[in-house]
Amino acid sequence: MERITATYLIETPLVPEEAAQVLAGEQSSGTFVAIPGETEELKQRFAARVESVEVKDMVGNPSLQGLTSKNSTYHRAEIKISWSIENFGNNLAVLISTLQGNLYELRQFTGLKLMDIELPLSYGNHYRGPAFGIEGCRKLAAVSGRPLIGTIIKPSIGLTITETANIVKTLTEAGIDFIKDDELLSASANSPFEERVREVMKVINAWAGRTGKKVMYAFNISGEIDEMMQRYEVIVKHGGTCAMISINSVGLAGTKKICDQGQLAIHAHRNGWGMLTRHPLLGIAFKAYQKIWRLTGVDQLHVNGIQNKFWESDDSVVESIQSCLTKMYTHKTILPVVSSGQWGGQAPETYRRTQTIDLLYMAGGGIMAHPMGAAAGVMALHQAWNAAMNGMSIEEAAGLYPELAKSVEKFGGK
Amino acid sequence: MERITATYLIETPLVPEEAAQVLAGEQSSGTFVAIPGETEELKQRFAARVESVEVKDMVGNPSLQGLTSKNSTYHRAEIKISWSIENFGNNLAVLISTLQGNLYELRQFTGLKLMDIELPLSYGNHYRGPAFGIEGCRKLAAVSGRPLIGTIIKPSIGLTITETANIVKTLTEAGIDFIKDDELLSASANSPFEERVREVMKVINAWAGRTGKKVMYAFNISGEIDEMMQRYEVIVKHGGTCAMISINSVGLAGTKKICDQGQLAIHAHRNGWGMLTRHPLLGIAFKAYQKIWRLTGVDQLHVNGIQNKFWESDDSVVESIQSCLTKMYTHKTILPVVSSGQWGGQAPETYRRTQTIDLLYMAGGGIMAHPMGAAAGVMALHQAWNAAMNGMSIEEAAGLYPELAKSVEKFGGK
Repeated sequence: MERITATYLIETPLVPEEAAQVLAGEQSSGTFVAIPGETEELKQRFAARVESVEVKDMVGNPSLQGLTSKNSTYHRAEIKISWSIENFGNNLAVLISTLQGNLYELRQFTGLKLMDIELPLSYGNHYRGPAFGIEGCRKLAAVSGRPLIGTIIKPSIGLTITETANIVKTLTEAGIDFIKDDELLSASANSPFEERVREVMKVINAWAGRTGKKVMYAFNISGEIDEMMQRYEVIVKHGGTCAMISINSVGLAGTKKICDQGQLAIHAHRNGWGMLTRHPLLGIAFKAYQKIWRLTGVDQLHVNGIQNKFWESDDSVVESIQSCLTKMYTHKTILPVVSSGQWGGQAPETYRRTQTIDLLYMAGGGIMAHPMGAAAGVMALHQAWNAAMNGMSIEEAAGLYPELAKSVEKFGGK
Repeated sequence: MERITATYLIETPLVPEEAAQVLAGEQSSGTFVAIPGETEELKQRFAARVESVEVKDMVGNPSLQGLTSKNSTYHRAEIKISWSIENFGNNLAVLISTLQGNLYELRQFTGLKLMDIELPLSYGNHYRGPAFGIEGCRKLAAVSGRPLIGTIIKPSIGLTITETANIVKTLTEAGIDFIKDDELLSASANSPFEERVREVMKVINAWAGRTGKKVMYAFNISGEIDEMMQRYEVIVKHGGTCAMISINSVGLAGTKKICDQGQLAIHAHRNGWGMLTRHPLLGIAFKAYQKIWRLTGVDQLHVNGIQNKFWESDDSVVESIQSCLTKMYTHKTILPVVSSGQWGGQAPETYRRTQTIDLLYMAGGGIMAHPMGAAAGVMALHQAWNAAMNGMSIEEAAGLYPELAKSVEKFGGK
């Protein structure tokens, strides 16, 4: 029978093998005492199995509160645990409860982070994965040979529908590929959802009619199921190509339901992610996280950006981009969404380190606050990526392009 | 205009007031640079507001990686931030993205935990809250004047349907009030969902027909939306009264959709919770967490237990119980589910510290592994709560009741 294997980074005052056995017991047939019905046969079939324990390190102070080590020794180890797929079948929610459930509560661990998941081929066959993926999004937005250039409507919240539509018009005419609502906005008092879609799509459709290029706009539909379904239909009706979901806020079941519709590309915003990963010994690593969401069927997933405004290191961002671009079964690969404090200056380094143009490269303030206006901001982004792909530095490119030069002046010192 | 206020515990190398302003900016109209459209009028209406900053403490080492303090000084403070409800209206997903979104990523914080949320009355009027709550669950299970005594089918996974039904029969006849699937089980290879419901409910309905008491069984429906809806109907069809959802795995939108049906009490399992709260300066505190799930409409919510097998302190467990029992608007209050390493011995201390019988008190191994069998395990639980409510110690009660005496022998040393 096929098995699912999870890799955890653990910290424990116990012998690591013993701690691994506690986890395997708690997360399969066991509980805190031996149970009459837990026969050898049942264990053989359903018990989780410790596949490997690789000791990494030893520290004197626990990362998290838990059992106290008498000799102040906390072991760090990488462990692999496996479960038969018979335990849950194709149920992602129960898979998550098994891989990320009560184990975080076990006092035997003073640190526990899910690092990776290996899922058998039967999962690949059962789930469709992204309906559009990188290639589909490129087609919808009519972009090839370079990253998609995107922006976020800023101010994040508060603009009227007319103001929003006007910004969309400016951006569209300046050559933007992708625009999204900020995640703080779905429908505010002065920006009801359907009216916003109608007015924004009027602008986008008019431009597409003239030029053949339809800008992809990710309308934030995050909300309750029925409302999301209804708003999804509103987008389809007005000729939109994309919906955005705050995946951590909406959750797995809601996101899956929307992805299953298959008519719109799904832009997955990972806001709240910091809570799940920021501690090095608690939560879940992006490599594992993105696999779950790819099974769910999202087409685009946020990965932060090089030299971002957040806490995350460039190494970690690069690794996240690579995860998204790694083939999974025969599924389409998903588009990494590079965002956070981006203004174009990071394009050469992003390209140098990832060697890919399969990115949705997003600048919010970096476009909207451009000294010559948002249109120049869009141009500066294109210029920055031209430079990156041609092996030029930003300084060299700034010598050629006045818009990019202004960006360097304004954002270069940040 | 009414406002929503969130209380955070923060740690920052900056002056706390300044850090609070960064958070308020990031989570409303601002971004990393000033934006042309962010007018004074717009800010007045939509910007988040720093309501208070109360400095608590100072530490020399940061709890999480972020901006480095030059003089090794990290301030801890409690801050209150408020938003106009105009920003999101009655959209819980966007509320969460605002209160728990990208703020955890901000490098300006080396610690950030959402401690509490104050929601205006309009929220109370918009959401129904729990359809059953404590009183409704008591009626469905026909229990008054004491806590509901519950158990979890153990082994957690692997039993056949016949084995499960036989255990249910034993427990029912022994006077159990509540039984639940383990969260690791929804439908496994040898326990398909509908067959399990049918066979379990046959036992429960037969007993109810004879005695008038229908044991509440929480079938784990966690999964995708359509499947959950279909399984919900299966439970209703077979006369069940409760469905269980792993709320962190299923997520907000999916859970809300199920709660909205209103025909079954919803048992909310919080597995995965450790990941969200175990670090003292990251994530969310239970007080805030339970408010969101009460708005969603769950009827029962896990709170861990006194002297549990997990990492959590008794103080924290007591506080969680009190949170669930605190009135919210005119909504029904929710039933705290006491669980984890419970066997009855903790009943007197649980009662002494909480002074309530409005609990669903659950023992898994504590019942199933009882030396005289599961039926005696159920009796021992009743005996323990009898003792607790009558001011007796477990030792005194063990002198009266042989079943409880056996529990003390077996579990008392753990």
